[in-house]
Amino acid sequence: MSEGAPRVERDGDVVTVTMCRPARRNALSREHLAQLLEAVTGVGGTDAVGIVLAAEGPVFSAGHDFADVAGRPVAEVRSLLALCTELMQTLQAVPQVVLARVHALATAAGCQLVASCDLAVAAESAGFAAPGGKGGWFCHTPMVAVARNVGRKRAMELALTGDVIDARTALEWGLVNRVVPDGELDAAVADLMGRATRGSRASKAWGKSTMYAQLDRPERDAYDVAVEVMAAASQLDGAREGMAAFLEKRPPVWPD
Amino acid sequence: MSEGAPRVERDGDVVTVTMCRPARRNALSREHLAQLLEAVTGVGGTDAVGIVLAAEGPVFSAGHDFADVAGRPVAEVRSLLALCTELMQTLQAVPQVVLARVHALATAAGCQLVASCDLAVAAESAGFAAPGGKGGWFCHTPMVAVARNVGRKRAMELALTGDVIDARTALEWGLVNRVVPDGELDAAVADLMGRATRGSRASKAWGKSTMYAQLDRPERDAYDVAVEVMAAASQLDGAREGMAAFLEKRPPVWPD
Amino acid sequence: MSEGAPRVERDGDVVTVTMCRPARRNALSREHLAQLLEAVTGVGGTDAVGIVLAAEGPVFSAGHDFADVAGRPVAEVRSLLALCTELMQTLQAVPQVVLARVHALATAAGCQLVASCDLAVAAESAGFAAPGGKGGWFCHTPMVAVARNVGRKRAMELALTGDVIDARTALEWGLVNRVVPDGELDAAVADLMGRATRGSRASKAWGKSTMYAQLDRPERDAYDVAVEVMAAASQLDGAREGMAAFLEKRPPVWPD
Repeated sequence: MSEGAPRVERDGDVVTVTMCRPARRNALSREHLAQLLEAVTGVGGTDAVGIVLAAEGPVFSAGHDFADVAGRPVAEVRSLLALCTELMQTLQAVPQVVLARVHALATAAGCQLVASCDLAVAAESAGFAAPGGKGGWFCHTPMVAVARNVGRKRAMELALTGDVIDARTALEWGLVNRVVPDGELDAAVADLMGRATRGSRASKAWGKSTMYAQLDRPERDAYDVAVEVMAAASQLDGAREGMAAFLEKRPPVWPD
Repeated sequence: MSEGAPRVERDGDVVTVTMCRPARRNALSREHLAQLLEAVTGVGGTDAVGIVLAAEGPVFSAGHDFADVAGRPVAEVRSLLALCTELMQTLQAVPQVVLARVHALATAAGCQLVASCDLAVAAESAGFAAPGGKGGWFCHTPMVAVARNVGRKRAMELALTGDVIDARTALEWGLVNRVVPDGELDAAVADLMGRATRGSRASKAWGKSTMYAQLDRPERDAYDVAVEVMAAASQLDGAREGMAAFLEKRPPVWPD
Repeated sequence: MSEGAPRVERDGDVVTVTMCRPARRNALSREHLAQLLEAVTGVGGTDAVGIVLAAEGPVFSAGHDFADVAGRPVAEVRSLLALCTELMQTLQAVPQVVLARVHALATAAGCQLVASCDLAVAAESAGFAAPGGKGGWFCHTPMVAVARNVGRKRAMELALTGDVIDARTALEWGLVNRVVPDGELDAAVADLMGRATRGSRASKAWGKSTMYAQLDRPERDAYDVAVEVMAAASQLDGAREGMAAFLEKRPPVWPD
């Protein structure tokens, strides 16, 4: 493992993937993107139920590393952005609940990471921005994820101004699920992850997958997908156990 | 009419459809779904201008009745979910303004009912949840409707945790339009329904229909639909009367 | 220039287009729509970086002029709505940042103007409504734009009731970006416009265009668009200068 690869630590059923290149502000260099993708994909194949995406240092992540972009030909930048997009979509594709633990500033593709996780908990010190809008390289791809979390006028404001919004504003706008004092961040992450990983693992994984499959579709198409999946999902051992336990007034024992 | 069929009561131009199986927590059994669909479709064919969807007892509705699902083959569950989806889409398809009067907890397909109505007024005692996420049968179809009312991160939180949000949170997230003290619920329902049913009936019905037709489309496609409808709607007697009254500075007399 | 054509004034890099038919409540007659379209298109072809859409008089804009609609055949109304839609889409198509300065009531197509601008700043005295819902001619096309700024239940409430929401509510719902005391409106407009127009002009223009191209698409399709554009955009002089300046720890000098 090369220097600065993300730390992958399992504690019970939850794996924490920590970006630990504080001196580089956890910039998403090509190498770091590949390492994160490998880490998340790797955990995705295990029986873990949750992934916490965390970071060390004064910044959560500053987004792309300009050293990988400046002066590079378009084909090389395209393949970098394709890799970045693959990471973002993998966060949604893995069966685990993925929760961003945002302790500090998350900008550009770093903000996109937060937007792409299923859930996010922020410390009061955290901030969020798409600074490309006030620079020379607009945050086109980060805004795909960010705009799907906040309203349209707010997305345009983030994208065009490049300004940082604080954690409370991010909560009001729906970019994060919780904001807590810095000292309570780990407890809040553990609490929300605990709540989000209760129940049958197989049912939850299918549920997450169907959510992303239906969210962007017209409502009738979304129902077409959801009805098929939910009917099939009623046959899962977990579904049978849950319903039997409810009808028999006893606690369920999840089989998976 | 079998025991426990919803009560259908007309008062002036507004019909209230009340689920009245309190001992079953207004669970949406196959029979109850069929009764609700029949009731709503029936009112849809009358000259009523509004439908209030209400419930009796300690729970607004607990969603599907597990007795109709547990141990049943996939084809049977699929047809149950298709019936449920038909009810949800009928709430949007009828020409009346449909308003959910939520006095208590609404979970799973019960929460989906609230999300599928045009408008919703909640008592402070109300709560909302998609509990499948912490059980064995994920709330796939309820989340189609719920996710179209709230933001993405909030939808994922509801779906994955299964936790109950209170009425104030539901208001902040856009799942309901009003929250009032329990004792003021009927007054608030009457007030909002009164406001939402003013004007020309034919114009309003076409308006509601076009809203659902355009909401999920890309903006340009949505304009294609809305321009055609709005041009045609300018020829309605109600539109002519409204504009004539405005230009002649007199109160309009709605012809329909 | 005929009486009442919008005033077009350039101050530095920002052009203000002001509707100045206060006695007509800045109604969007066919003539006025054509004048606004000509004004916005004209500025769109200049090197200005921002457009402020403003109005004079007691009302920001009351929407369509019924004198242009009442008693007219459907083809004529359709062409009026097509012209109106062209104006709304041009606000999004021009390369400048377009900001609505809303000092007073904006209703129907007047509210649609606000919803169609990239950004909006409102005075506390401002209000917003889609009054067709309580009249005879439903606000079909205005709701295309408005519903893409606010949540679904809120869109239905605006559309069905026709009621006015105040500026604070519009802020909470995401229809505007700032609300300030009336006397601070110009300062707030200048501040937000200043923030939204920093950086490379060519980068920003491409960014705005890509935002509207991706917002309505399913997430994967949106990434397909954004990756291509962002890769190509890395080759712009502005992007090269921004990255070079960052890596060399000096202030950027925008070339365009």
